[in-house]
Amino acid sequence: MRYVKGFTATTMDDYQLNLINILKRAATYFPDREIVSRLHSGELLRYNYREAYERVRRLASSLERIGINPADRVGVLSWNTHRFYELFFAIPGMGAVLLEMNLRLHPNEIVYVANHSKAKAIFVDETLLPLAEAIAPHIKAEKYIIMADGDLPETKLENVYSYEDLVNEGDPDYEFPVVDERSAGTACYTSGTTGNPKGVYYSQRALVLHSLAELHAIGIKPEDVYMQLVPMFHANGWGLFYPATIGGAKLVFPGRYGVDNLGPVVELMESEGVTVTAGAPAIFLPMLNYLQSLDRKPKLNVRAWSGATEPPLAMMKGLLEFGIEVIHAYGATETTPLVCYNFLKPGLENLSEEEKWEMRRKQGIPVFGVEVMLADENGNPLPWDGKSIGELYIRGHWVTGSYYNDPRTIDSFVEDGFLRWWKSGDAATIDEHGYIKIVDRFKDLIKSGGEWISSVDLENYLVAHPAVLEACVVGIPHPKWEERPLAFVVVKEEFRGKVTKEELLDHLRQRFAKWQLPDEILFVDEIPKTSVGKASKRTLREQYKDFYMQ
Amino acid sequence: MRYVKGFTATTMDDYQLNLINILKRAATYFPDREIVSRLHSGELLRYNYREAYERVRRLASSLERIGINPADRVGVLSWNTHRFYELFFAIPGMGAVLLEMNLRLHPNEIVYVANHSKAKAIFVDETLLPLAEAIAPHIKAEKYIIMADGDLPETKLENVYSYEDLVNEGDPDYEFPVVDERSAGTACYTSGTTGNPKGVYYSQRALVLHSLAELHAIGIKPEDVYMQLVPMFHANGWGLFYPATIGGAKLVFPGRYGVDNLGPVVELMESEGVTVTAGAPAIFLPMLNYLQSLDRKPKLNVRAWSGATEPPLAMMKGLLEFGIEVIHAYGATETTPLVCYNFLKPGLENLSEEEKWEMRRKQGIPVFGVEVMLADENGNPLPWDGKSIGELYIRGHWVTGSYYNDPRTIDSFVEDGFLRWWKSGDAATIDEHGYIKIVDRFKDLIKSGGEWISSVDLENYLVAHPAVLEACVVGIPHPKWEERPLAFVVVKEEFRGKVTKEELLDHLRQRFAKWQLPDEILFVDEIPKTSVGKASKRTLREQYKDFYMQ
Repeated sequence: MRYVKGFTATTMDDYQLNLINILKRAATYFPDREIVSRLHSGELLRYNYREAYERVRRLASSLERIGINPADRVGVLSWNTHRFYELFFAIPGMGAVLLEMNLRLHPNEIVYVANHSKAKAIFVDETLLPLAEAIAPHIKAEKYIIMADGDLPETKLENVYSYEDLVNEGDPDYEFPVVDERSAGTACYTSGTTGNPKGVYYSQRALVLHSLAELHAIGIKPEDVYMQLVPMFHANGWGLFYPATIGGAKLVFPGRYGVDNLGPVVELMESEGVTVTAGAPAIFLPMLNYLQSLDRKPKLNVRAWSGATEPPLAMMKGLLEFGIEVIHAYGATETTPLVCYNFLKPGLENLSEEEKWEMRRKQGIPVFGVEVMLADENGNPLPWDGKSIGELYIRGHWVTGSYYNDPRTIDSFVEDGFLRWWKSGDAATIDEHGYIKIVDRFKDLIKSGGEWISSVDLENYLVAHPAVLEACVVGIPHPKWEERPLAFVVVKEEFRGKVTKEELLDHLRQRFAKWQLPDEILFVDEIPKTSVGKASKRTLREQYKDFYMQ
Repeated sequence: MRYVKGFTATTMDDYQLNLINILKRAATYFPDREIVSRLHSGELLRYNYREAYERVRRLASSLERIGINPADRVGVLSWNTHRFYELFFAIPGMGAVLLEMNLRLHPNEIVYVANHSKAKAIFVDETLLPLAEAIAPHIKAEKYIIMADGDLPETKLENVYSYEDLVNEGDPDYEFPVVDERSAGTACYTSGTTGNPKGVYYSQRALVLHSLAELHAIGIKPEDVYMQLVPMFHANGWGLFYPATIGGAKLVFPGRYGVDNLGPVVELMESEGVTVTAGAPAIFLPMLNYLQSLDRKPKLNVRAWSGATEPPLAMMKGLLEFGIEVIHAYGATETTPLVCYNFLKPGLENLSEEEKWEMRRKQGIPVFGVEVMLADENGNPLPWDGKSIGELYIRGHWVTGSYYNDPRTIDSFVEDGFLRWWKSGDAATIDEHGYIKIVDRFKDLIKSGGEWISSVDLENYLVAHPAVLEACVVGIPHPKWEERPLAFVVVKEEFRGKVTKEELLDHLRQRFAKWQLPDEILFVDEIPKTSVGKASKRTLREQYKDFYMQ
């Protein structure tokens, strides 16, 4: 790999890719376009881009006044509200870093994140004061800014400011500095299943380029209405509120919501005319259940990116009945997050309907700005044949090149000249059309007799059985085959004692070869979980490590 | 204006915005998508992105072999062919600069451009050999590469190579270097009406960011079919072939064509199923005439950006009848070129049909990445009221910050902190919705009694009169009012001697106030033109400078 410098250009290349330009332009050209935010009372706050930009200017000026400086890290503990949105401009706008604090993490992990990043101040939603108060004694933040809809509540926190006071007292004519585009604008810590979270610091350059990629990928137009479902503390909430703002779309922030009570969210989608959103099966599955439980049949018109895990076919087809088109997208905290999304390329029109659905379940093809490589265990490229399983290596404009101040960087990246690849840890195939299919976490793949078995495939097919509530498959050391699959199954209440191991194996035999079947299926009451609610395969592997050795 | 550096990011910000990545990705994910190019014989060449990328790799390796180095300027004299397209990747790909040579310029100007840029080699389409041979003795290019469909024709040029030989002898596995993104990838010289052309050198960064803006603005999808109508030697041919390649669209290059014979172009649009193109009224008006002259009624499905001058309403409505939706867009050589394009914003749905058409004639609102200011003669901002006329100042990621090695830079830019504005020379209004309307070249505005009169508005309304073939209005010094408009009119053959000055003034009175009317209308046989075919107002002003003084 060579690096060359060419001839001097005359274009304004010092003009910086800055996030604040996104909101400034929306305030200029779409001043009256609405922003709707659900308050804790359930009421809807309505304002617009012009007012948002003014509030952001006021807020940024107040932050400077209370001693926040460029390059400071500023944490946020919040639900998806208009204030969190404002902070995504105000904090990077003045040159500081918005630190996304994942409130679903264990408090010890939140403490780790705050201290590792040396967060100087923390914004706290009023409903999250107990959490902030619990971690405050263990962290070094100097200031807390409370985001309350009404009067400031009582709190044990010290050096407390009111968000709305800072806005009201701020300077509406504040001029944002030009920020070097390589400065971090936001930061998010990944919640791995092992060890402490790892810090990814997104440059403003990366965030703006990522926004332009998303803008085209999901094709936002000024007529669109975007709802922010993905928690904004999770990989920039997938960042779609940035391109939605570029595109001049109306924005809808649902505030706090739970997957066990999606009525208010669905009603908001209907009443505000939402056309674009993003989420994961973890929310879209209960949303489908909710929609199907209604007496009436809501008719929506939404394109929805679905990430995190493969969207079940029944979910995609079911939601389409209600006008929600699920588009599979893929990414990670380390990739800002968008790597690829699914669309049917020209030349594939002649596939059968069922083949098209199978294509739609794949993760898709990478957007311009991101490159992938399918690598074997030695880092050598594997063919794109839809069969070879390898680890997905990723690089590009908005892919992280290291973990901040973390020795684990060494194991997660591969040097390639003066560039590097991020090792995603995802095991994938890539077909001859370039469509990526994630088959497992690389470490969860089961290596049996020199061949890979996908634990995820087995799990997905197990839960498709009517009796199965939850399934988890892990590779367990085996004297002859190196590893063999062991399945754990939680049976639905009404099927307890009524389904046998043989029945489930028969079910699996419809899809899998004999050597891919689990040697044993264990019925359990529950599957151990990590702090973010995923199955803890590490726990199971550790606990059952001698199972096939006995 | 302050400049701040923030906290270190971990994203791969050294990953460069390089043009070659556009074609590489298309070859990877849309390998079989077609590229269609009309050869000089009229036959259509069909190949695809995979083959184009291989040809570009071969060509780039050969260029290195024959002594082209990074940073060298390499001229191209060509029509809109697939080879010109390949050069837009091969030359920047290896780190050199593609110099667009406007074959419509006077040969003396082409010589100036070649020498000012110190072009080391020049690519010549076989049909343009006479032009190349005419300028060769006066320029310092060391090599000529001839682009011929068949055998290499005889030529007086020395050090001649065959394009196809360079391709065939090249290395299909050539690895492109990573090029510093601030290196110039292409260059174009503006053909001003005064003095020598001025050089704009576009960085690869600017060109890639511009491509992403266009990609979203015109919304290219893989199903689209893009036809390159704008000459590729003119402001990067508006650059749309770059986003079309990102989007995976099929590409159509019409080769050499003339506005007096648009049949082959229209047939190509129909037979290849073109859905996206761009051009100017100079081509769309004759295209409409051609379409209306046919016995059959072609039914196309094209969205077409129209730039350069305001699209006449009758042209927009007429083309829509044939399925060509004209979208007004605006830019300049200095702006890569896209500044803005027209679309109806939410909130304007309730305008009447005629009001909507009036909106569509405006230049539109700037895309993300470009900022504008409406400035008075002292550089102070004017209100956006749709009435105040000022000069349009422009800056942004793909706006030039200087003219290469040219003292005229001083007069064309205004410093603003460590940034600067480019003074477009265009006189404009901006309405309360942010829509820009160009009313004239600033220097062609007529200042009468302290008020501005748009020469372009008067001209447009004059040509709307059935008897008028061509009209030109200039400001002439006046003892009392500083300047007063003087109109020159060429009457259509069949109306000669049948239309009076009073009749035309009556026509203008329907639209203009008394003080805006020309004091005199002169009937002339022709209007003097510049080398690029525009009315030479400078000539008329000079010739008639004492007209109102006598």
